[in-house]
Amino acid sequence: MNKSVCIVSGGMDSATALALTIASGKEAICVHFDYRQRTESREREAFNALCDRYEIASRYTIDLGFFGAIGASALTDRSIAVPSDFAAGVPITYVPFRNGIFLSIAAAIAEKEGANEIVIGAVEEDSSGYPDCREAFLRSLESAIALGVKDETKIAIVAPLIHLSKAEIVREALKLGAPLELTWSCYQNEDRACGVCESCRLRLKGFALAGAKDPIAYEA
Amino acid sequence: MNKSVCIVSGGMDSATALALTIASGKEAICVHFDYRQRTESREREAFNALCDRYEIASRYTIDLGFFGAIGASALTDRSIAVPSDFAAGVPITYVPFRNGIFLSIAAAIAEKEGANEIVIGAVEEDSSGYPDCREAFLRSLESAIALGVKDETKIAIVAPLIHLSKAEIVREALKLGAPLELTWSCYQNEDRACGVCESCRLRLKGFALAGAKDPIAYEA
Repeated sequence: MNKSVCIVSGGMDSATALALTIASGKEAICVHFDYRQRTESREREAFNALCDRYEIASRYTIDLGFFGAIGASALTDRSIAVPSDFAAGVPITYVPFRNGIFLSIAAAIAEKEGANEIVIGAVEEDSSGYPDCREAFLRSLESAIALGVKDETKIAIVAPLIHLSKAEIVREALKLGAPLELTWSCYQNEDRACGVCESCRLRLKGFALAGAKDPIAYEA
Repeated sequence: MNKSVCIVSGGMDSATALALTIASGKEAICVHFDYRQRTESREREAFNALCDRYEIASRYTIDLGFFGAIGASALTDRSIAVPSDFAAGVPITYVPFRNGIFLSIAAAIAEKEGANEIVIGAVEEDSSGYPDCREAFLRSLESAIALGVKDETKIAIVAPLIHLSKAEIVREALKLGAPLELTWSCYQNEDRACGVCESCRLRLKGFALAGAKDPIAYEA
């Protein structure tokens, strides 16, 4: 049986990528990163709820407290506000090279576990504008990983949502029966989603265009 | 003034790479990783002593406790003995994708600090046989980083020792007046270097071929 290391934040995208991996018959090893993002407690709760629902036997919660020391993002520096509108260019919620760090750690776990792929719910189109969500980056890092691990280790980076719109992700999740009610996407709040941060707006737009109702609670 | 993010373990190679960076007139931001390696306390002491000697204003000590959970190496798993001889292939002291993780985190720090290079004391020839010390890997990861950070961020990976022998590194360090008495290379001990692990053997061989005396203390 093939093993996949699935990076699971607890959001809608990673939950859908996990659902796809499980539907394909692979054994999922789930990895969650605590990078001192504002909503980590809530995201970790979502991660564990998803793992419980899918009966994941092997899960890693990786403490990356140093992201708090690096800061330089509205998600990891409390002195930078989370914006409630979109600006041109790379948003202030971009965390320097976050996916590069996540994927490098996932590669180490994959090499240790004998997994032959890493699954990440990165979305390039219709999404955040983060440079580390571009497919060209993922392909390039996949090549670098191949050169930096043992010759017999083979690790693909699989990004099944990379070219989907948020509406297509919602439709895919509903088709798979992914438990979207367990997921959390809001950058700002941990009780009721704010509905106005970039991440909430993208999620709500996806549900609206898919003609579906988001099952999580939002502020009035 | 150009800024360099220097990865400094506290060993002879990273101390020499740091000395070269400072000699070239760059501002060094020093980064040390605690990956739960056996000799971390001693390596951290060496790191801080080197930073003090070179009057480094900006230093990061990054806690990577998860390496202990990943294990799979004699350096991070206490149940695997540190060998005292060389075997064929990748040695059991190889830590899965360690340099990939270190360089990814250094890239995040470089992007935050506005540094245009990362300096790593990796040695490909005459050394450990670790896949993540190969120049082809470093060049490939440099390309991946360029695609995964903001378009305006430019980060080179500089490995000034990559093709040097250990003897050449000793000669270079002595020429630069690098404080090798402050460094630590032993994989096994934290008081007196064991003299027989891979890392001690490579170091001692370098001093012997360079016709110089290693200033640190070894077990009798």
